[in-house]
Amino acid sequence: MLAKNPRLSNDEQISAMLLRYEIEQFNSVYASALDDQRLADWAEMFTEDASYVVLSRENEDRGHPVGLIYCENRGMIRDRAFALKKTAMFAPRYLRHMISNVQLTGEADGGGIRARSNYLVLQVLFDRPDATIHQAGTYNDIFRRTEVGLKLAQRRCVYDNLLVPNALCIPV
Amino acid sequence: MLAKNPRLSNDEQISAMLLRYEIEQFNSVYASALDDQRLADWAEMFTEDASYVVLSRENEDRGHPVGLIYCENRGMIRDRAFALKKTAMFAPRYLRHMISNVQLTGEADGGGIRARSNYLVLQVLFDRPDATIHQAGTYNDIFRRTEVGLKLAQRRCVYDNLLVPNALCIPV
Amino acid sequence: MLAKNPRLSNDEQISAMLLRYEIEQFNSVYASALDDQRLADWAEMFTEDASYVVLSRENEDRGHPVGLIYCENRGMIRDRAFALKKTAMFAPRYLRHMISNVQLTGEADGGGIRARSNYLVLQVLFDRPDATIHQAGTYNDIFRRTEVGLKLAQRRCVYDNLLVPNALCIPV
Repeated sequence: MLAKNPRLSNDEQISAMLLRYEIEQFNSVYASALDDQRLADWAEMFTEDASYVVLSRENEDRGHPVGLIYCENRGMIRDRAFALKKTAMFAPRYLRHMISNVQLTGEADGGGIRARSNYLVLQVLFDRPDATIHQAGTYNDIFRRTEVGLKLAQRRCVYDNLLVPNALCIPV
Repeated sequence: MLAKNPRLSNDEQISAMLLRYEIEQFNSVYASALDDQRLADWAEMFTEDASYVVLSRENEDRGHPVGLIYCENRGMIRDRAFALKKTAMFAPRYLRHMISNVQLTGEADGGGIRARSNYLVLQVLFDRPDATIHQAGTYNDIFRRTEVGLKLAQRRCVYDNLLVPNALCIPV
Repeated sequence: MLAKNPRLSNDEQISAMLLRYEIEQFNSVYASALDDQRLADWAEMFTEDASYVVLSRENEDRGHPVGLIYCENRGMIRDRAFALKKTAMFAPRYLRHMISNVQLTGEADGGGIRARSNYLVLQVLFDRPDATIHQAGTYNDIFRRTEVGLKLAQRRCVYDNLLVPNALCIPV
């Protein structure tokens, strides 16, 4: 039953599994930073030249690059984190990220690691008692290894919803 | 803290973990094939003699084998994939699979690997802006190792909902 | 691409990964015990001195320890499991747990393993055809290694919803 995959050496399989494990741990830390509203911690999970984009699947499929959020370096990501901390509208809600189905998809130019995963963000607004679906979609990622562990050089969040409820541009 | 499970040797634990890793990677590829509507790719993830069934938990519990979908070999699975590509009603929606809680549950007759996992399928219909729950349930699986990696010899999708909205028989 | 994390030895990384794997397998068994309504099996997943608490994020954030469920040893957990089996109101619903984003967060006093994860519980009530969100939240856990594998010495379930629909106190 436990016969290993014959196409790969044991060491190769263990290396791939370690990488997947690291990305899953990364995504868990990422989810809790956003869910706990520690946005400064969230911003530090990106490389200095990182691109962070949130756009609809509809626009992605049609090749329209227009997104809800468009940051092309960590400075812009930090600005967004800072702006949201100052926004009165952001506070009165709870978010909960469920990230699953991580998939290693190959190597990126310059030595990065390509991966994708599915995400679901649940939201509780303080004037409604129940949890509702805020966004569902896919992360298209490029990770880069740095001295302090993995960081995101790209996270492209493509959401399925046609409209995002309470369309405040909160990161996902 | 990191003391290992004393009941198993290190090698046995690593083998079990590698198998779980392979199944998780498989499920991620499976999810993205369906979410991207690459149904021909999806059909190739089954063995030639595979059984693929989608039925309600209510019928499963009562021993009624009546399902929404019932395929008893890969030819039937391919037929379904082909039929859906031709169905105008299938296109105008987005699906998103979240598969979690993979559990290795033992060895099947003939050397297969038994596993189960939970799934949630979210749906966006093009006449409604929000994502809704299409189906939630359990995959009861038998995997078989082939020359080109793991394949499903059985996937029995048992969904909890009493009715499936827009009861088009799309694979999950 | 697969260069390993340089800050940890290979053995340390594999140990951490094995632990995470064990916790994920534990959570999958936990989810299926609750989803299959095998509550006696569920109760045995705790240590004798375990604490099991379900409380709202609102109360948690304000330091109010008032919870929906408050058990301070396995006897109380077993009592709750037994009481629910006898409750006519419990039967007519299906539950489905999705547990994701496991995060190892360090060592607890006395040698336990601290972890957290996110959960989503879906519910199908028998007078409504669709699956709805019952609860979303975080497990704050302490695991302890016993002769029969990992057990929970603490599971603190903090849910985001402001109200739990059909506020029957079912375990999550």
